[in-house]
Order: sequence, then structure tokens, then C-alpha cells
Amino acid sequence: MDYMLKEIQQQPVIIPKTVKKNFNIIKKICDKIKTYDIRFIEFVARGSSDNACMFGKYFLEYMYGIPTGLMAPSLFSLYNEKTNLKNVLVFGVSQSGQTPEILEVLKKSKKCGAYTIGITNNPKSEIVNIADDVICLNAGKEQAVPATKTYTAQLAIFYIIGFVLAEKFKMLDNFVAKVPKFINEIINRKEEIKFIAQQYRFARDLVVLGRGLNISTAMETALKLKETCYVKAEALSASDFLHGPIAMVGQDLPVIIYAPKDPTFQHLFDTAKRLKNEFNTEMLIISTEKEITKFTNNKVLIPKKVEPLFSPIVYIVVGQLFAYYLAKSKNINPDNPRGLKKVTIG
Amino acid sequence: MDYMLKEIQQQPVIIPKTVKKNFNIIKKICDKIKTYDIRFIEFVARGSSDNACMFGKYFLEYMYGIPTGLMAPSLFSLYNEKTNLKNVLVFGVSQSGQTPEILEVLKKSKKCGAYTIGITNNPKSEIVNIADDVICLNAGKEQAVPATKTYTAQLAIFYIIGFVLAEKFKMLDNFVAKVPKFINEIINRKEEIKFIAQQYRFARDLVVLGRGLNISTAMETALKLKETCYVKAEALSASDFLHGPIAMVGQDLPVIIYAPKDPTFQHLFDTAKRLKNEFNTEMLIISTEKEITKFTNNKVLIPKKVEPLFSPIVYIVVGQLFAYYLAKSKNINPDNPRGLKKVTIG
Repeated sequence: MDYMLKEIQQQPVIIPKTVKKNFNIIKKICDKIKTYDIRFIEFVARGSSDNACMFGKYFLEYMYGIPTGLMAPSLFSLYNEKTNLKNVLVFGVSQSGQTPEILEVLKKSKKCGAYTIGITNNPKSEIVNIADDVICLNAGKEQAVPATKTYTAQLAIFYIIGFVLAEKFKMLDNFVAKVPKFINEIINRKEEIKFIAQQYRFARDLVVLGRGLNISTAMETALKLKETCYVKAEALSASDFLHGPIAMVGQDLPVIIYAPKDPTFQHLFDTAKRLKNEFNTEMLIISTEKEITKFTNNKVLIPKKVEPLFSPIVYIVVGQLFAYYLAKSKNINPDNPRGLKKVTIG
Repeated sequence: MDYMLKEIQQQPVIIPKTVKKNFNIIKKICDKIKTYDIRFIEFVARGSSDNACMFGKYFLEYMYGIPTGLMAPSLFSLYNEKTNLKNVLVFGVSQSGQTPEILEVLKKSKKCGAYTIGITNNPKSEIVNIADDVICLNAGKEQAVPATKTYTAQLAIFYIIGFVLAEKFKMLDNFVAKVPKFINEIINRKEEIKFIAQQYRFARDLVVLGRGLNISTAMETALKLKETCYVKAEALSASDFLHGPIAMVGQDLPVIIYAPKDPTFQHLFDTAKRLKNEFNTEMLIISTEKEITKFTNNKVLIPKKVEPLFSPIVYIVVGQLFAYYLAKSKNINPDNPRGLKKVTIG
């Protein structure tokens, strides 16, 4: 079995493990955040870790109510900037814990007064020596180059932090009890997703739409498609999409839409309707709601019981499986995409 | 003459006007920023205005040394979030001053304690009633749907704010004296850019790379190409590009690279070299440096005297002209792209 598929299938086991191993560490970190009067949270990462940070940005601001932002790494790594980072928390996220640029930004952030936290899958990596505190994913070694289990483990970390900061411990229990089951249900439907994915084997381009908490899901799906299928996939907020890029839509540009029943739903519904009526766009829609899937033949209906708040960590598994099976149908080895190396240490 | 070309050509006249009309207003605003002990700056916009904000984020953090971030509009417009925005400045940027989502976010930001500034091209629009202070572009009515002169006028506003905050008044004088001339020199070379653009008329996809201050230039170029040429153009930080998307590169995916001689140059040089040697990628390189253009036949050599700090507002004119002439060579009317309407009021 390919490593990528194997690692996708490990996710229901890894997530509760990540939560269990990190709960006490995260409780201490959240106490520090409150003691240090943290007023602003910044994130720095690249690739899939950066997409996880996009989720972290939305989720922590939503749960804890302080402003959050994605750092511009080059300001610190190239322009050598001196930003005042007093009362600022910086998360540096690196699966390998060795990405030089991320380490550099963390070092300089600390010098600029920030409280720094590293999130990594490698407890023996350099990030441990640099960050003030470290959270380890405990996802096990990832052999495939495209990140899957480390991405959802990073999401799980941000879920725990958000719930603990907001003191929503029942929601955290709910998360641990339900999310692995939900992901298992998606994995059990892999033949259905395989059948859909194969139909896109001649697509050169794809647009992936999400909004709000699921912009990260759209971005990570697009990245997986680029890495493993060499498809020019671009993720867009459904709202940005209407401010310009919609001009490029034609029948040869399929669109994937993530539409959980949350406050973003109505806007995604209207977008899907417009794409169908004005452009007859070929769409794949992932949603709990039958009413939005009427605009297309290609859909993955998610069980109604999957709460919208958990959608980013559940729906992305559809995107991972879609990218995996699309690569297979194009005779590409998903474990070793051309032009890419994984940064890992022994 | 098409409005889009006409408006591109108005830019050397508009920029000094924008500076002159706004200098005193901005001086007062900068005093307030210091009096209010602003610790963090947020930006909210969509489309081209959002790309201008990306420049604002980098430039103000670089010049003034406080953290900056792009707001997630949906957190305020859909999730109805209550973020603590005390000591936070929020810029809401809308060419029309009427974009409902931006107005909504500004209203809620004010309620959450922020100091809000609207940037608009329409002094009679709703944003004037909502924001604490307003800066008007004075760019004249923009008739073409793709924003050109309003984009560079927005950049000019952020340049002034950055220079005034950092009390670099000589740099501001330098900006006013030189930038209009530099832009004029680019406009005078429009036949050269037209000749290059025509060669891309069969390209379905394009990647646009920049880094640091010029990530905004890459993003705005890609947006112009999507809107006016229906080309699937995606902008990427050269660094993110290597973390995954490089896998999709083949000979049928041309890459545009913005490479001014600033701290990002070496990395862009290495990226161009790798693309040439490993993939024989078709590239268009925009730079002051001959050494990086040796990897391609398609180049726009910028005069050495154009300072790297001014590159975002000068180099983007190459992108605007490239998009304009590419649309013309594809027999597309650049003034009225399909699927798009401009929000303007009389």
C-alpha cells in the first residue's frame, strides 16, 4: 500500500493520541498566554503547515477573541526587521522542526519580545532548542512527501488550544469522542471518492472554494492536488472569487466547493447556483446539505451529524483521498512527487 | 482608446496628486496612531484593494516596526465575532467605498474598540459615514472594470503613511520626485511589452512569482490576468512555490518573475536557475539585473536607478500593460470582463 493512503488511514488513531499527549502541556501554555497578557497571535509556516496555520488564525480568533495574523516570514528572514512583539505570541509550525526559514523567524521573534511556541512532529529537532515551548504532534513518522496525518494533527493542536483558551472543555471532549469516528466514516467511503476522482483525470486546472473556517480546507486540497497530481489547482475564498477570478470560469474549469451548514453556507449556495446557471460549471460539492448538491452530479454528502465546527478536520479527508486517487488514476506515484523532497531527520 | 490603457497612462499624473491632497490628512492620522498607542494594524479589503493591502501590511511593518495582519472579513461579517480591538488600527479599503462586506467589518471593528480608517476613491460614499477617518485617492473616476490607477493610488497612500510614521520625509520627497518618472518610462516602453505579451496568447496557465514587498505585485498581476485575459494565473511567494506547487511545473506552464535587487533577489535568482536547469521553464523576468535575465529570452529590464523600495509601484505597471495587451491579442475587451461588474456610484 502507498504510504500516502496508509497515513490518511492512520488519522482516526493519531488524533486522540495527539490530544491525550498534549492536553497538560497545552493547559500550561494557555495559562501563560493569559499571564503574559497576550494581545495578538501570529503564525509562521510554509506549505501544508501554513494551511494549518490559516485554520489556527480563524479558529483561535473565533474562540478566544483576540486578533490573529499570518506573519510575513521574509520581513524577518530577509529584511531583518525589528518589530515590537511585546504581548505577542508567535506559533512557528514545522513538521520536520528543521525548516531554516521558520527557525530564523522564531529566533528573531524571541529577540523582538514575543512568546514563541514551536509545533513539530519531531521532538529531537532544532525547533525544540529555539522556541520557548514546544508541542509535539505525535503523529509518527510521515513517509509520503505530501503531508496528510501531520496536517490533521496540527489542526487538532489548534482545536485543543482554542477550546482550552475559551474554557470549552465539553466541546473538547466532544471533539475527541466524535472526530475520529467521523474521519473513519469518510475513509470507509474511499471507493466512492475514488470513482469521482477518476473522472477528473484529464482536468488540467481546478478551482477549490471554501470560506470562513474552511478556507484552510480549500487551500490544503489545492496544495495536495498540485503536489500529487500536477494539476493547476487554486484555492480561493468564495468571496474573493467573485471579485475578479470568476471571469476565467468556463466549462473546462471544474470547481470543488466545501459547503458545511455554517454561516458561510448561504453564500456558497448562491455561488454554486450562479456557476451552474451562468456558466454550466462542472462542480464537485462536499456538504451535509442535499439542496446545494442539486447543481451537480458529483457530490460527497457528509452525514448531518458532523458539526460545522469540526468540518475543517473532517472534510479535508475527502480532499486528501480525492488527491490520492486522482494521482493513482494519472499513474503518478503520490509518495514521491517530482521536484519535492521532504525535510525529515532520523 | 480603451479605458484600461487610458487609466494606466494616467498614473504618473495621479500619484503626485494623491500625495499632495493627502499629506496633511495623513500627518494628522499618524499623530493619532501614536497618541492612541496603536500596537497592531489590520487591513480589510477584497480584490485589487486586498492586494494593495498586502503591500500595506509589509511596508508599514517594515517602516514602523509594529505587527500587521490581513483581517479575515468573514469572522466579522458572518461569524459575528467579538474580537478585542483595543489599540488596534483597522484600514478598510474599497475603491467604491460601498462594498457591503467591508463596510460591515469596519462598523463592527469600531464597536470592538478599533481606530478605523477608510481608503476610497469616492468621497461621497457610505464609508465616509462609517470610518473614524477617511483618505480619498483622488484618482478620478475609473471606467474600466479592472482596477489600475486606483491600485497604484492605494499603494501611494501606504507609502506616504509608512514614510510619515517613520518620519522619513526625505524618502517621501524622493518618492514624489522619482516614481511618476519611473512609471512614465515603463509606459513609454509599451510596444516592447505588447510584443512580449502577444507571445503568451495561447497560454492557459501562468504562475507569477514575487517575494517580500513584491508579493503584492505578483498577486495583482495574477488577478489582472484572470480578470482581463481569462488565464488561470496564480501568484505565489517564491518560497511557498518550492514547498509543493513546484511539482506542477512543466514546459506548458510559463512563469513570470519579479526580481528587484533587494534582499529577495538571491532567492529569486536561485529559483529561476532551478526552473531553467531542471524544467526548462518558459519565463518572463522583470528585473534591473541582467544576470537573472540570462535564463530566458523574455525579459523587461528595469533601469538601475529604480530603487528596490519603489519597485512595487513601478514594476506593477509592467504587469498591467502585459495583461492589457494580452487581452487585446486574445480579442477580449479588457474594459468589461465577463462575469464582473464594477461597484461605483454617481
